Amino acid sequence: MRLSELSERSGVSVHSIKFYLREGLLPPGERKSARLSEYDEQHLRRLRLIRAMLTVGGLSLTQARDVLAVAEDPAFGRTERIGAAQYLLPPHIQPPEDEVARREWDQTRAQLAEMLHGLTWRFDDSSPSLDSLTKAVLALRSLGYGDADLLRQYAELVRQLAAAEYGGAIHPLTDLDKAMEGVIVYTLLAEPVLLALRRLAHEDTARRLHDGE
Amino acid sequence: MRLSELSERSGVSVHSIKFYLREGLLPPGERKSARLSEYDEQHLRRLRLIRAMLTVGGLSLTQARDVLAVAEDPAFGRTERIGAAQYLLPPHIQPPEDEVARREWDQTRAQLAEMLHGLTWRFDDSSPSLDSLTKAVLALRSLGYGDADLLRQYAELVRQLAAAEYGGAIHPLTDLDKAMEGVIVYTLLAEPVLLALRRLAHEDTARRLHDGE
Repeated sequence: MRLSELSERSGVSVHSIKFYLREGLLPPGERKSARLSEYDEQHLRRLRLIRAMLTVGGLSLTQARDVLAVAEDPAFGRTERIGAAQYLLPPHIQPPEDEVARREWDQTRAQLAEMLHGLTWRFDDSSPSLDSLTKAVLALRSLGYGDADLLRQYAELVRQLAAAEYGGAIHPLTDLDKAMEGVIVYTLLAEPVLLALRRLAHEDTARRLHDGE
Repeated sequence: MRLSELSERSGVSVHSIKFYLREGLLPPGERKSARLSEYDEQHLRRLRLIRAMLTVGGLSLTQARDVLAVAEDPAFGRTERIGAAQYLLPPHIQPPEDEVARREWDQTRAQLAEMLHGLTWRFDDSSPSLDSLTKAVLALRSLGYGDADLLRQYAELVRQLAAAEYGGAIHPLTDLDKAMEGVIVYTLLAEPVLLALRRLAHEDTARRLHDGE
C-alpha cells in the first residue's frame, strides 16, 4: 500500500509517519521509484505498536526507539532480547543520594529480592523493577503499610497472572517479532487495564462491605 | 513538637512544610504564641501521606489538596467520601472527539461495563476507571490483543486482590481518617508495587519457559 493508505488505515497522519521513518522507528518501505515506496501489513502493525507505546504506554520517542532497536538486534538471543526490551521500559528509579536513606534503600532492596527468591522467583537482581518495588515499598512502610504478609499475597496473585499472560499468550509466539510485540503489549499496555480493573474491584468490594450503611 | 522537629522526623524541609500549611494541605498546628505552633503525631502522619501522594503517587499539589478536602468534607457519609476520593485520583481519561472514534469508544465502554456487571461487579458507570479501562482495552485490541477471555481472567484475579486489600486492610479501619488514608495508600501507592512485582514475575515465568535455551 502507499503512504496515504498506510496513514488512513492506521489513523496516523502522513506527517507523523514520515517522522517515524526518519527517526528509524518504522523501517522503510519497498522503494518503487524516487517518490514512491510500498508498505505492507508489517508496517501497519509496527505503526500501531509505536502509537500504543507512545500514547498508552507513555514512552518518549527515544525510549520507544531504544526498545525497538534492542528487539531487532541480532547480536542477542531471543530470551536476552525480550529481557533487554523489558528492562528498557520505564519507569527507571534512581536510589536516593543521601547516605542514611541509601542504606535503608539497599537493605530493603536486598530483603525484597531475598523474599522473592525465597518464593523461588528467578530474576536478575539488576532488574529495574526491583528498584521500582523498593521505592514503592519504602513509601508504603513510611505510612505503616506494606507488611510482608501483604507483599507475599500480592506476589502469589501476580505470579498466577504472569503465568496466564506469559505462558498462554507470549510463549507460544515463535515469531520473534510477535513475541517482542507481545512483551511490549503485555508489559506496558496491559498495566492500565489491571490498574483500572483493580479500582473498579475496590469499589465493588467497598459497596459489598458497606451495604446498608 | 515544634516545626523543626516535625521537619526532622518527616524528612520534609521546613520550607516545604510552611508551603503545605499555606496551601491548606496540612492543618495548622496548635498556636502557642505569635511565632510558635505545636505539632503532633497526626501532623507527622499527614505529612508522610502528602509526600507519598506527591512523590510515589505522582499527584499534583492541586490534586492532592482536592483528595484531602473531599476526605474531610462532613457533608458526605463515609462511603461517599471514600468513593469520591478514589474518583479524584488520576488518571482521568477524556473520550476521543472524533465522531467515529467516539462511537467505538462508547460501544466498548458499554461492553466492558456489561461484562463486569455480568460478573456481578457493582460500581457506578460514571467511574473514571471505566474510562481508563476503555482506553487501554481499545489500544490492546488495535494490536489484536485483549480478548474477552483474558479480561475475564484479569478480572477474576484482581477481584481476589481487592477483597484481600479492602476486606482485610481498609474495612476494619473504623477511624474515618485512617480509612481514607488506607484508600489513598492502597489505591495509589500499592499500584507501583503490583506493577513492579508483575514485571519480576514475567521475568521469572520467561526464565522457566525458556530454560535450557
